[in-house]
Amino acid sequence: MQIHRINPTRRWSDITVFNGIARFVEVPEDASGTIESQVRQVLAQAEQSLTQVGSDRNRVLSVTIYLTDFGNLDAMNAIWDDWFPEGSAPSRACVKAALADPDYQVEMAFVAVAGDRWH
Amino acid sequence: MQIHRINPTRRWSDITVFNGIARFVEVPEDASGTIESQVRQVLAQAEQSLTQVGSDRNRVLSVTIYLTDFGNLDAMNAIWDDWFPEGSAPSRACVKAALADPDYQVEMAFVAVAGDRWH
Amino acid sequence: MQIHRINPTRRWSDITVFNGIARFVEVPEDASGTIESQVRQVLAQAEQSLTQVGSDRNRVLSVTIYLTDFGNLDAMNAIWDDWFPEGSAPSRACVKAALADPDYQVEMAFVAVAGDRWH
Repeated sequence: MQIHRINPTRRWSDITVFNGIARFVEVPEDASGTIESQVRQVLAQAEQSLTQVGSDRNRVLSVTIYLTDFGNLDAMNAIWDDWFPEGSAPSRACVKAALADPDYQVEMAFVAVAGDRWH
Repeated sequence: MQIHRINPTRRWSDITVFNGIARFVEVPEDASGTIESQVRQVLAQAEQSLTQVGSDRNRVLSVTIYLTDFGNLDAMNAIWDDWFPEGSAPSRACVKAALADPDYQVEMAFVAVAGDRWH
Repeated sequence: MQIHRINPTRRWSDITVFNGIARFVEVPEDASGTIESQVRQVLAQAEQSLTQVGSDRNRVLSVTIYLTDFGNLDAMNAIWDDWFPEGSAPSRACVKAALADPDYQVEMAFVAVAGDRWH
């Protein structure tokens, strides 16, 4: 069974897929904005990643959410709750951690089911 | 292949299962107590989650342990070490992180093998 | 399908393997040295773990990197970037976290594809 890597660089691949499971991590492309902006970006980027592997918002299995400040938890949750179609929210862990860029306020690591042709 | 979700809400599912693998995260239901109380609760809740997907303590593959204070590591380990049947301890990472409820002292993210009917 | 555990103790297994996927976590065996020494050890230990399950550096799917100090990020990345064969870097998350031994400066949690006889 083949390992698929989307946009591999020396440092990371944007997505890896094996045996129907996609793994990818998102940080906001533009980290200059508010927590709302950053969460919307991370989820929009996640949607693009899901699309790239023939998947969608209904097929996320688990997310690890790293927040730099739990003062942002409610703002994050408001956007998060609206993003997943009803009945399709993943298992999730949510912890506080400083992130690689001091402007990042959120990072999310996803495990999702890829589309049929990736199985 | 189907994705199974146990108790999906807008925000999370208690458990997701796909291709025989269950993913779930536990925090103590009653966070008012000692680290010992919280670790016992998290592991008891994990047992309930495993049972819900036809699994048990022998089939945990990996756990990520988040502790808010490494002063609690020995107390956590004492209970942890007794919980897994001999020869069945998982791979584990253990790091310090602040958690979403300031009373939480421990959060654990599990990956486990589900029972046969979930494969 | 069988769960394989490498070196199970009461507390953890060095590696678990199920359905072709290996999960393992590395901290430096000798934590007295520099970040460079610790990263080199963690990656050398990862290579040994991969070898034990019939795998290699080309088959890592995801890594969660815990650093105690982002001042060490560039030093870590320099060694990391050289370690993965071109085109085979994994998905990765990288966050700051205090670790169980105050001398540890890095911990890495791996998910990788095991060799054929483990599928």
